[in-house]
Amino acid sequence: MPSPEETNCEHPSAAIEADATGGADEATRQPISTVLIIIAMQTEALPLVNKFQLSEDTDGILFPKGVPWVRYHGKYKELNINLVWPGKDLLLGVDSVGTVSASLVTYASIQALKPDLVINAGTAGGFKAKGASIGDVYMASDVAFHDRRIPIPVFDQYGIGARRSFCTPNLLKEVNLKLGRLSTGDSLDMSPYDEGAILANDAVIKDMEGAAIAYVAELLSVPAIFIKAVTDIIDGEKPTAEEFLQNLVAVTANLDQAVTQAIYFINGRCLSDL
Amino acid sequence: MPSPEETNCEHPSAAIEADATGGADEATRQPISTVLIIIAMQTEALPLVNKFQLSEDTDGILFPKGVPWVRYHGKYKELNINLVWPGKDLLLGVDSVGTVSASLVTYASIQALKPDLVINAGTAGGFKAKGASIGDVYMASDVAFHDRRIPIPVFDQYGIGARRSFCTPNLLKEVNLKLGRLSTGDSLDMSPYDEGAILANDAVIKDMEGAAIAYVAELLSVPAIFIKAVTDIIDGEKPTAEEFLQNLVAVTANLDQAVTQAIYFINGRCLSDL
Repeated sequence: MPSPEETNCEHPSAAIEADATGGADEATRQPISTVLIIIAMQTEALPLVNKFQLSEDTDGILFPKGVPWVRYHGKYKELNINLVWPGKDLLLGVDSVGTVSASLVTYASIQALKPDLVINAGTAGGFKAKGASIGDVYMASDVAFHDRRIPIPVFDQYGIGARRSFCTPNLLKEVNLKLGRLSTGDSLDMSPYDEGAILANDAVIKDMEGAAIAYVAELLSVPAIFIKAVTDIIDGEKPTAEEFLQNLVAVTANLDQAVTQAIYFINGRCLSDL
Repeated sequence: MPSPEETNCEHPSAAIEADATGGADEATRQPISTVLIIIAMQTEALPLVNKFQLSEDTDGILFPKGVPWVRYHGKYKELNINLVWPGKDLLLGVDSVGTVSASLVTYASIQALKPDLVINAGTAGGFKAKGASIGDVYMASDVAFHDRRIPIPVFDQYGIGARRSFCTPNLLKEVNLKLGRLSTGDSLDMSPYDEGAILANDAVIKDMEGAAIAYVAELLSVPAIFIKAVTDIIDGEKPTAEEFLQNLVAVTANLDQAVTQAIYFINGRCLSDL
């Protein structure tokens, strides 16, 4: 067994613990039936859609009329795969990135699909000072927000919203991912205020959705994991937006390979095997 | 009729325009049947619960098991009133403020209750340089985000997420509210980066939910208005958190009076009468 430092398992998963009915305990001993993969950008999603030959929902019954959210679904052996992408903004035509859209699609998808596990996959910025390089793929051990500053006692902790992700030591080893803390905020850039909060969160990677998805998954008692590939170095010299766009397609290949291997590993296993 | 400068009606409501089926047009000519009031803090909500003798849902069927969201409901004459508060954080016990919770409860409540109108009521910071004073109650003419910086063309506009609120010139006049632009972010304080963005949004008031609620209401084609009372002066000398807590209860009385008068005015009227 790997040591606690090498896993995301210092503490048991909050999501599993949150279910006081014992239902989760039972669920951990049955093979995982349905996974929900949440991906914010179409560029990140399409290679997985092709890889697993997922079909796009066209009947429009899963989500309310008018929302741009897109669900792809299919099977890998015994595993039901749902990949949900929040779609293009209806007015502006760009991917609906960020915490608000991510929260909404996670909520609506969990309600509609009752998944056993949520996988949030995407790209992220990485800190080279903490060991991250372009193309690295991380599993988040913990998530937190860095742009929700509420300087009132207890509200400050609510704003940070630190959560441990679901504990998957075997999956981590099998797919050979790096392990690190993830910090989430709604800006692609990083203000000095954000930087202080990210350092306080002890994060090695930074994204725009993870902690919000963790919040929703915990509310609805579904375990969640976070697989993030590094497109840009935050503490480097290149402007984030430029580096992000330059590396997005190439790094997505690493991301999709990691998610594919994760799906292969998850198939036929119970939550407690992960 | 007031001049365009004195109303929130320079352009027709995006929410009404968004409905290309003509259903909204028809709805604007029938009396409003159901309003959904979204309020982030219990202190802001309870006076209205008492005023309209609203009952708390205890059957737990409206929202999923496990969420802390609370719905109060009742009638004022012919008008069905639903007041939804995102409740206390299950781990930390503080009000579930901010854009993620607000988005989720707005989405779930619109889905469950099919309201004709969303009213987001709450407290806000105000800029004295733009004419705001403690205790003022504003109707937002426009909303936008100030903490979603995405410096990639078009994504930048998505991040700002500027929207006009539903146009209610008669309600504005009747309740005698001030009119101004609202800027939303997930921090109670204001970083220099936020300040630049708030100025760019030309905002006179600043809150932690409005633009997210506007986003969800527009997604689901429900008109939304924003009534915000000023608890603290952002460009003043006192620390925001201290001033906010000091004024919260007193200013809430002004807020609740404004919302009460709005409900009186809305009852029996069509959307197009507002």
